[in-house]
Amino acid sequence: MIDLRSDTVTRPTAGMRAAIAAAEVGDEQRGEDPTVNRLLERVCALLGKQAALFLPGGTMCNHIAIAAHTRPGAAILAHRDAHILRAESAGAVMLAQVQTEALDGDRGRFTAEQVRRAATAGSRYEPATRLLCVEQTHNFAGGAVWPLGELAEVCAAAHERGLAVHMDGARLLNAVAATGVPAHEFAAHVDSVWICFTKGLGAPIGAVLAGSERFVSESRRLKHICGGALRQAGIAAAGCLYALDHHVQRLADDHVLARRFAEGLQKMEPVRLHTPQPDSNMVFFELNGWTHSAFLDRLATRQILLGPVGDRLRAVTHLDVTADDIDRALQAIEDILTGRGDGFRRRSRPTR
Amino acid sequence: MIDLRSDTVTRPTAGMRAAIAAAEVGDEQRGEDPTVNRLLERVCALLGKQAALFLPGGTMCNHIAIAAHTRPGAAILAHRDAHILRAESAGAVMLAQVQTEALDGDRGRFTAEQVRRAATAGSRYEPATRLLCVEQTHNFAGGAVWPLGELAEVCAAAHERGLAVHMDGARLLNAVAATGVPAHEFAAHVDSVWICFTKGLGAPIGAVLAGSERFVSESRRLKHICGGALRQAGIAAAGCLYALDHHVQRLADDHVLARRFAEGLQKMEPVRLHTPQPDSNMVFFELNGWTHSAFLDRLATRQILLGPVGDRLRAVTHLDVTADDIDRALQAIEDILTGRGDGFRRRSRPTR
Amino acid sequence: MIDLRSDTVTRPTAGMRAAIAAAEVGDEQRGEDPTVNRLLERVCALLGKQAALFLPGGTMCNHIAIAAHTRPGAAILAHRDAHILRAESAGAVMLAQVQTEALDGDRGRFTAEQVRRAATAGSRYEPATRLLCVEQTHNFAGGAVWPLGELAEVCAAAHERGLAVHMDGARLLNAVAATGVPAHEFAAHVDSVWICFTKGLGAPIGAVLAGSERFVSESRRLKHICGGALRQAGIAAAGCLYALDHHVQRLADDHVLARRFAEGLQKMEPVRLHTPQPDSNMVFFELNGWTHSAFLDRLATRQILLGPVGDRLRAVTHLDVTADDIDRALQAIEDILTGRGDGFRRRSRPTR
Amino acid sequence: MIDLRSDTVTRPTAGMRAAIAAAEVGDEQRGEDPTVNRLLERVCALLGKQAALFLPGGTMCNHIAIAAHTRPGAAILAHRDAHILRAESAGAVMLAQVQTEALDGDRGRFTAEQVRRAATAGSRYEPATRLLCVEQTHNFAGGAVWPLGELAEVCAAAHERGLAVHMDGARLLNAVAATGVPAHEFAAHVDSVWICFTKGLGAPIGAVLAGSERFVSESRRLKHICGGALRQAGIAAAGCLYALDHHVQRLADDHVLARRFAEGLQKMEPVRLHTPQPDSNMVFFELNGWTHSAFLDRLATRQILLGPVGDRLRAVTHLDVTADDIDRALQAIEDILTGRGDGFRRRSRPTR
Repeated sequence: MIDLRSDTVTRPTAGMRAAIAAAEVGDEQRGEDPTVNRLLERVCALLGKQAALFLPGGTMCNHIAIAAHTRPGAAILAHRDAHILRAESAGAVMLAQVQTEALDGDRGRFTAEQVRRAATAGSRYEPATRLLCVEQTHNFAGGAVWPLGELAEVCAAAHERGLAVHMDGARLLNAVAATGVPAHEFAAHVDSVWICFTKGLGAPIGAVLAGSERFVSESRRLKHICGGALRQAGIAAAGCLYALDHHVQRLADDHVLARRFAEGLQKMEPVRLHTPQPDSNMVFFELNGWTHSAFLDRLATRQILLGPVGDRLRAVTHLDVTADDIDRALQAIEDILTGRGDGFRRRSRPTR
Repeated sequence: MIDLRSDTVTRPTAGMRAAIAAAEVGDEQRGEDPTVNRLLERVCALLGKQAALFLPGGTMCNHIAIAAHTRPGAAILAHRDAHILRAESAGAVMLAQVQTEALDGDRGRFTAEQVRRAATAGSRYEPATRLLCVEQTHNFAGGAVWPLGELAEVCAAAHERGLAVHMDGARLLNAVAATGVPAHEFAAHVDSVWICFTKGLGAPIGAVLAGSERFVSESRRLKHICGGALRQAGIAAAGCLYALDHHVQRLADDHVLARRFAEGLQKMEPVRLHTPQPDSNMVFFELNGWTHSAFLDRLATRQILLGPVGDRLRAVTHLDVTADDIDRALQAIEDILTGRGDGFRRRSRPTR
Repeated sequence: MIDLRSDTVTRPTAGMRAAIAAAEVGDEQRGEDPTVNRLLERVCALLGKQAALFLPGGTMCNHIAIAAHTRPGAAILAHRDAHILRAESAGAVMLAQVQTEALDGDRGRFTAEQVRRAATAGSRYEPATRLLCVEQTHNFAGGAVWPLGELAEVCAAAHERGLAVHMDGARLLNAVAATGVPAHEFAAHVDSVWICFTKGLGAPIGAVLAGSERFVSESRRLKHICGGALRQAGIAAAGCLYALDHHVQRLADDHVLARRFAEGLQKMEPVRLHTPQPDSNMVFFELNGWTHSAFLDRLATRQILLGPVGDRLRAVTHLDVTADDIDRALQAIEDILTGRGDGFRRRSRPTR
Repeated sequence: MIDLRSDTVTRPTAGMRAAIAAAEVGDEQRGEDPTVNRLLERVCALLGKQAALFLPGGTMCNHIAIAAHTRPGAAILAHRDAHILRAESAGAVMLAQVQTEALDGDRGRFTAEQVRRAATAGSRYEPATRLLCVEQTHNFAGGAVWPLGELAEVCAAAHERGLAVHMDGARLLNAVAATGVPAHEFAAHVDSVWICFTKGLGAPIGAVLAGSERFVSESRRLKHICGGALRQAGIAAAGCLYALDHHVQRLADDHVLARRFAEGLQKMEPVRLHTPQPDSNMVFFELNGWTHSAFLDRLATRQILLGPVGDRLRAVTHLDVTADDIDRALQAIEDILTGRGDGFRRRSRPTR
């Protein structure tokens, strides 16, 4: 099976499994898990932050950060297609009780001017804007990268207006791989940031949220409120540490494969490519003349999985995908689109 | 003082005060206030709804309706400039725990197609859209009226997708006055609607929320949760009944005066008019070359009050404003803009 | 009709109606209603507090005060039978998101030691206690008065532990009438306190919440969140001011009548009196051998209303109840209990 | 180090680590993790429930169950010392927005009559009681077991009143080991129940919440809202399955050791034992004449850890504790209490 639905489907490698099995562990919620503690130190260094917190997943990182930076009745800004607004079940609203304000813009981005206009100090009537959320890379915008300069401007505008800035860095290391800019340089412009280990990094469980001591202390309280406190989490953290040691450099390979896939699709007639030159490891496209289910069912019979994301199809490259897989996937798509060797189609015609 | 800041500043007339003083009263939260009960019947008939609830103000009507139509973790749609999003302190988010999704569009309106695109059935990840909010007339869009046909289409699109529709009808009766369409025809397209008595209708306290029996029953529970249950509310309801009897027809007069004011402003150089032909009782404009405070302070010394609403200035006509007041206000504005007889200006120049 | 169900059923007198009709008014939520402002000054002086806020009812005072003193995830302490826990629809939980911790004790009271034991600084696991709520007089404990000394001790214990103290003073002025202790002496021990005007004071609408400038400023934000901001609220506030001028002294009369009623009931066989010597204006009792509905229905046919409150019956004396009413009510109860002249009973027997 | 602070400190055994390393995995939140799916089936069979959900920890099980069984503004009943009230950071209040009502009683238990009295259908004023929570075994009551008969009565009373019943079964399998009653017999009386794998069962991460299909479907939505959706959770679930295969029978050994520890303590003068005959794996006691910190510090220098739980000390036996460990701990405690070989003490005396 070639699974291009998401980089979240990556499975731990043999090396990672060995590291997991050997992990030194302790009670995480008492701060006693040595593997978790080592991971937190590594992530603090990587992101240039004072303190960090281990959490079972990235969505909880976002919920907690939003609640830690705001108070009930505040407003937050995020791109209209942000994962926070589109794919986190309104959990931030429920935990933090904040009003969400969507910013529009290409490629998951918006301008400093938009932030300045949208941010309000609040009044008797209007909720005060307390937080700007940015997403790096931006998933639903096609794995798009915020260039450092633009990001810095937008964050500066937010800070100028008294907002905190939180970065959903689920795939921040893909942005690092794509640009060569170190993670801490991106992170320097934001007050909190998290990275996910279960996506391109290939670990089974875990995300780390980082920021100031004070922010992390309040986040720890919220972690208990969310039911996210863990026990011998070193089992999970060992996979994350292994990923930092072995799977960071190779993210660039995923980007090469995404570009290869995009180039292949480019040539096919009914494909409308949203990401002709993907920034990172995602390819979004539409197919004229096909329903998602008809196309994806055919593809699945050839052991290839793609994901529908709203109106579009998405392919994500990752640890478990090779160049050969990409070529086979392209071939299968071409066969389906041109009707070659299509069992479904043949069955639906008169057998004569 | 000519107070054009809002139609909420209207004061009860002598007749209304007499009605208030004579009100037959009882315990409202036990359902025993006869004047409140009469008001609820009147409003049900006016709006063509089964049941209704008396509340101390319109913002609480919106909060309660949003909570009654949804459940925590749902999403709601409203225009980006809706009073619900811009001027209700995120109260709906706090009571109902819903994510707010802003729709863009001129004049406080959006299309059926926008509703269809934004409404989602929800998924493991995405909050399900449960409610569309419309505002009639639309305050921050300049007192703009949704034409019945457009409104019907938008509501039909929402219902098609399984959404309920709630109308913030704070100034619904202004839309009635502007179009001649009866209130119940507008209301027929929505599942809940409220009208406010403290704006152009000139009563001191009160709003009534209406909908199905079931909706109002749940709203009554939420009214207690909000702390909105009242005692001898007939004192307030008597003012509302008086307003229905005496102040509905005259709303059209306010619209005439708003147009007169807009026409007058039109001719002045530095004025950029947002509502050249106001739909109802509001005029929005910008002033080139003036800060709000400088202009409004000068105006105030001439006993004229206007309101800043975000980047714009707003004048609202109402019960306590006459044609003569409008002419005096226009004259004062012209004087200030041309520097005539401007005490401030003179004082700031060398006197010799 | 002699309505002893609650002192909330009081109706405005002719004098109060005249004051209401003549009220000078303005826009309350802009701080421009002169009658509201006068009322707030009066209440600040009465309670010895810096600042105050006018609200449509007492339940909203409690919700707002609880939210203003805490943050989501905190715990609050209140007597198990506090109005806040028993009769406010969990609204405080919904607005403030706090865990409620019930204290037990006779007469709506508890000890400083109980407060010390229940208050916790919080931990990774346990919610931190942030607020103690006291109720003066205590409604469901029979209108019981906290003696000043006991109250002071309990509040001191709370402050010692870093808790704020909020007083639900719906009937604080009844405690004043019962003890001769000035309101500000009771209020001096708490950080926030409100009084209600729609109970024994006889006004139709209104309550005032008081505390420090800072507390009231945050409460004002929460008032908008709750939908409690009003317009020409002077109409209501005028009734409250009238009540302060004319109905405070006479609260003592209600207490005399409550004692008269209790003494009368005392002698009746099937009555089990919970308040043999009522502190203020309430009498609670049980009736052996009668269902509430059977007894209350019979009473109602004699134009007398009592309220069931949980397992008990409650009679409340107030402005609209005279000594003669009390005597008639006692006579009616005696007649019913002894079966004299009981139409129901007769009808249910064979007529022969 | 002999760590008796909690059974949560257990570390995975070599066998469990091997099972973890070999786990077949998939994307849990898509329902594709085969190891998680096998675990869910096992737990459904064990507990006799239709459906189940894997979660990162037990606190989240409680939060989700409480929210799934109620609606905002409802009330829930739980023992005053329930983990839900004492040690879950008010997370249930924040997610579910419910008022908590504490029941008192010895050994973490209460009676059917208490439930009947506390449960209310709700009114205009009073929150409706929707859920009863029971805890089996009851942690802060000393690992006390609810006997099946009593539990059945209490649950029947709740159901009679229209309440759902949720069991915090963090240590349900300890109750099974203590009584011989199968887990599904306890679980048959409740609508939802979860078991924890990170306590006596010795797995590093994981808890499973079970109930009806409908309950679990709503719980899945809430899991996303809580940020508890996971990816290759089979890594964790493999430890849980291993625990079910290898660590259930041995829970009885922990109970034997707890009794041994209690018997040993019994004889020591300053010990006031709360659990003279522990039901399961916990021993609670107080020490006259010692502060917790003085005693625990001395104990720690002898490589023995106990936990303070409020005013008491708690020892919990588990997988990583042997009979020899218990004897050594008892000896160390006796030495400290009698002042023998006490380094601290010696250092604080003149050395001469």
